[in-house]
Amino acid sequence: MAKKKLRQFDIQEIQNPEFLKDLSYPELDLLSEDIRKYIIEITSKNGGHLSSNLGTVEAIISLCKNFDFTKDKIVFDVGHQTYTYKILTGRKLDTLRKKDGISGFQKMDESIYDHFEAGHSSTSISVASAMAYARDLKGEKYNVIAFIGESSLQNGLALEGLNTLSESGHKVIIVLNDNDMSISKGVGGLSSLFRNFSTSLIYRKTKGAFRKILRGRFGRWLLVKFTRIKNWIKRKVVNMTIFDNLGYAVIGPIDGHYIRQLDHAFERAKRQSKSVVIHIKTIKGKGYKPAEDDTEGDWHGVSKFNIETGEIAKKQGEISWSEQYNTILKEEMAINDKIVTVVPATGHGSALDSLFKAYPTRVIDVGISEEHAFTFAGGLAASGLHPVVSIYSTFMQRSYDELLHDLARMNLNATILIDRAGLVGSDGETHQGIYDEAFLYTIPNVTITMASRSSESLSLFKESLSNHGVFAIRYPREYFHDIFKVDEIIPYGSWKVELSGHGTAIISTGPMTLKLKEALIKENKDVTLFNAIYLRPMDIEKVNQLLNYQRIIIYNPYSTKEGFANALESKLYSIGYKGEVIVRCVPTQFVKQATIDEQRKEFGLAIEDIISLI
Amino acid sequence: MAKKKLRQFDIQEIQNPEFLKDLSYPELDLLSEDIRKYIIEITSKNGGHLSSNLGTVEAIISLCKNFDFTKDKIVFDVGHQTYTYKILTGRKLDTLRKKDGISGFQKMDESIYDHFEAGHSSTSISVASAMAYARDLKGEKYNVIAFIGESSLQNGLALEGLNTLSESGHKVIIVLNDNDMSISKGVGGLSSLFRNFSTSLIYRKTKGAFRKILRGRFGRWLLVKFTRIKNWIKRKVVNMTIFDNLGYAVIGPIDGHYIRQLDHAFERAKRQSKSVVIHIKTIKGKGYKPAEDDTEGDWHGVSKFNIETGEIAKKQGEISWSEQYNTILKEEMAINDKIVTVVPATGHGSALDSLFKAYPTRVIDVGISEEHAFTFAGGLAASGLHPVVSIYSTFMQRSYDELLHDLARMNLNATILIDRAGLVGSDGETHQGIYDEAFLYTIPNVTITMASRSSESLSLFKESLSNHGVFAIRYPREYFHDIFKVDEIIPYGSWKVELSGHGTAIISTGPMTLKLKEALIKENKDVTLFNAIYLRPMDIEKVNQLLNYQRIIIYNPYSTKEGFANALESKLYSIGYKGEVIVRCVPTQFVKQATIDEQRKEFGLAIEDIISLI
Repeated sequence: MAKKKLRQFDIQEIQNPEFLKDLSYPELDLLSEDIRKYIIEITSKNGGHLSSNLGTVEAIISLCKNFDFTKDKIVFDVGHQTYTYKILTGRKLDTLRKKDGISGFQKMDESIYDHFEAGHSSTSISVASAMAYARDLKGEKYNVIAFIGESSLQNGLALEGLNTLSESGHKVIIVLNDNDMSISKGVGGLSSLFRNFSTSLIYRKTKGAFRKILRGRFGRWLLVKFTRIKNWIKRKVVNMTIFDNLGYAVIGPIDGHYIRQLDHAFERAKRQSKSVVIHIKTIKGKGYKPAEDDTEGDWHGVSKFNIETGEIAKKQGEISWSEQYNTILKEEMAINDKIVTVVPATGHGSALDSLFKAYPTRVIDVGISEEHAFTFAGGLAASGLHPVVSIYSTFMQRSYDELLHDLARMNLNATILIDRAGLVGSDGETHQGIYDEAFLYTIPNVTITMASRSSESLSLFKESLSNHGVFAIRYPREYFHDIFKVDEIIPYGSWKVELSGHGTAIISTGPMTLKLKEALIKENKDVTLFNAIYLRPMDIEKVNQLLNYQRIIIYNPYSTKEGFANALESKLYSIGYKGEVIVRCVPTQFVKQATIDEQRKEFGLAIEDIISLI
Repeated sequence: MAKKKLRQFDIQEIQNPEFLKDLSYPELDLLSEDIRKYIIEITSKNGGHLSSNLGTVEAIISLCKNFDFTKDKIVFDVGHQTYTYKILTGRKLDTLRKKDGISGFQKMDESIYDHFEAGHSSTSISVASAMAYARDLKGEKYNVIAFIGESSLQNGLALEGLNTLSESGHKVIIVLNDNDMSISKGVGGLSSLFRNFSTSLIYRKTKGAFRKILRGRFGRWLLVKFTRIKNWIKRKVVNMTIFDNLGYAVIGPIDGHYIRQLDHAFERAKRQSKSVVIHIKTIKGKGYKPAEDDTEGDWHGVSKFNIETGEIAKKQGEISWSEQYNTILKEEMAINDKIVTVVPATGHGSALDSLFKAYPTRVIDVGISEEHAFTFAGGLAASGLHPVVSIYSTFMQRSYDELLHDLARMNLNATILIDRAGLVGSDGETHQGIYDEAFLYTIPNVTITMASRSSESLSLFKESLSNHGVFAIRYPREYFHDIFKVDEIIPYGSWKVELSGHGTAIISTGPMTLKLKEALIKENKDVTLFNAIYLRPMDIEKVNQLLNYQRIIIYNPYSTKEGFANALESKLYSIGYKGEVIVRCVPTQFVKQATIDEQRKEFGLAIEDIISLI
């Protein structure tokens, strides 16, 4: 794209970042504005990560100007802040997060500019240090950059990477994007370290004088000089940051929305002979007021929204399973003071905001520390409290050992609320919640359950408090009409018979069971439908009843078959079942982005697919 | 136990730590010596962790003197340094690590003095911070102590705990046991930070003048004063440690073998209102020369040994599977310069010492950073190298998400050498390698294999380099006579027929297959024996042949049934098998310490148990 006169960019025409080199700073600022508008427009239609992308526009422009990512490598931590990078490397975002469309994260088969992939946080330093090692081993020359947010850096994996890289001698440029807010707020000492370390007053999300000064050139110049001196003293005289301690060169903190300053920083970083941390301060959501003013994380990942009003689309009359469990938690914590809820940074995503407000000392956000969350829960349980860990299925993958070693092995009592279990739709393959049921099945002493209706969910939660060791309750990223406001008691380990019939028995689990029931009634099918609320332990009495059927269909659209389905088949063998068994689960593969309905159709998991089996 | 005159302790008479309060410092020093002798004697007979226990005698004596662990809580990280604690709390170690005997780690059902359990590293800060939280929530008053080694502190879980605790306001006393050596040497910037931070020259494992000075009282006094001043300057003026940065109070470094100084430190720590780190320097293996001089980790965990000569028992004429894979790695790395081996601190345990020497730049010890190891491997693979991760099965539990998200999901090529897969014997339930096969089965794109003989292991390794994505090779903590020094090519995904017969087919995996074969021949049994070298993908042609047998026995003494066994049963259903299926796997439970043979007998997994089925 040739250089044009001021303010005439067509975002859609960008093929690659080459054109950036020909632009003046005022032009780059205008480009930033245009990119922001485009991002706001696209996410308002497709949903996606808004705040993180608005906060990183200038930093990514400067990176693409100063490096050549056909040779240099960049690893974006999590990768949900890459929209600007996608735009500058020639990708159109119209199909963002849609089936067969552009991913919301880095994706190697999308572009030669993407060098790795992520979706979970805190992997970038480890990956970048491996790339730098490979470069040096092969005697090649290029820059390797890890772009990581402040909260991601507090995860154990990132800290392991930071520790290991520091003495490796293989140079990596770490861009630390410090925006005072990740999925939820930064937690722990490192977080306040960053706050102290930075020119905090000025960069905080205060509206008013400081913000205004920042906007002026003189204000920025003043700030830059002042900050530089202050930081030079801190580093050279007091040697105070963790990065200095570990032996990194440190540049910054600098204004992450000021391209000229970013350019200087990247130039300096390139000249460094050792690994360097560039500390940039950015305003998350910058350029879209509702997102800038957001302190709760509403604008981190959004559904469709109205640009003018800032109103986020929500299904009418329906509540999410996350909201349902928030309600249950609030009620139960009110009557049982032993319950303590632990959540690793996903409190807002799991609709727990009002829970935090109701029990500020008994709801603990440990930040993006999934490992710590479970070991901490182990310590709580050993101290006579009842921990409830609220976590997304996909992030619980980080806690396999801690769940096994620090909870289940000692048979300590804990409730695990597993949000976003099953297919998750447009977040795509890094975020699927389809593996937890199977991996929980490999761990002794773990009860695994899933409710089909709200009344069951309350009963399950109450049961989880009754001395059963680790008690996992899965629930999907779905909405439902709450028409089951009744008290219900489901005995531990039991299934429900939803329909009684002959010939074929269907064992189904989760909310789709109700939709299946509805369809079976409508189609007048003569089958038995079991609602397998308890995936482990199984209802052995009901399993034995299965011997009376010629055909058994195991329907679990919320998991792969390696957990419950395989275990049930094995059980059927052991009791001598000789009939036909059909299994309909999510296939054991990585599932690409699409709507959940599209994904179910693709795998033959839609209600009509099951009906057609009968 | 009443106070006696100098040097008359009977270790066996100790009931609880009460008597310590009545002892003079010279008496305490003599007690230390006696405890050391007892520990050396017991481990020489039973095997166990020697160096870490010899290094912590005085520190634990002082802890037991200064705290009351019927009320106060102590969490030993890993727990393999608790022998002195066990002795002082009235446990006899004669049955250490034996069936139904005393555990080599903390064990809550062993003593009211044990408040939590571990076996994996780096959990103690998270657990202690939860206990402190619970204490404060309930308004109770007691001290909570986390006792953690320097290398354990570098793991992500510990760093998450350190970060989260620092701002929680719930006071924990962290005893940082800095001994310059964990399972293998400390790695990364934090490690050198500790080295700089400490009075390094004096505490290093130099023989000579400094050691001698240390032994004298005046030398110690001098050292203490000098160290205190130096550290006061460092902390008050330069504010330099990561602990200071995070807001902890810091005491030390102090001499961890000097009880008077330890007493002072613990007294000061009790008076602190906020969380405090006591940095103690100890000499691992102190009091047993071979262990003191050990720089390789030979004396970390030992088998029986001769106290006089320091000779460690080894089976004659047999080699371990770890040694076998070390040999393979050395040969293959010589001819393939793309191979890079990554190992998280278990290089010595996995017999890789000579590999480190042969390829110092291509064998990377990342320390106790299991998460980082796999993500780093992902970065290597994405850079065109072929990573080999060598890891114990039990520690790979820490890497579930990294294996899934950073390797398998992108179908990157990597070889995983899974050491100590299956039952592990006397390390007990925290270390069993019986879960990895099952949890690997839940992850798409992962090949899972196990060789029965050395010729197969070489073939598997070579195959793992051929573009199959993540390729896992399991091997047990066992020895074998290498009588299969032949070249062998096993096509990808295929099983071997070891014996051909009628009626019953046995599908077996791993080295026990050969013992079973031998017994079947000896007993003249007319059965077919399949050697399932590939647990995933299965050999579908051979699976189809199973339709010809009335009875199928699946024998996998190296794993629970949730992996291969369940998957094979499911496969048999799907092809319409109607015969009898018998499954003999390790039960899905936590398996207590005993010899591997005892454990197999208990679960009906001994060769004679399988023979008796036929």
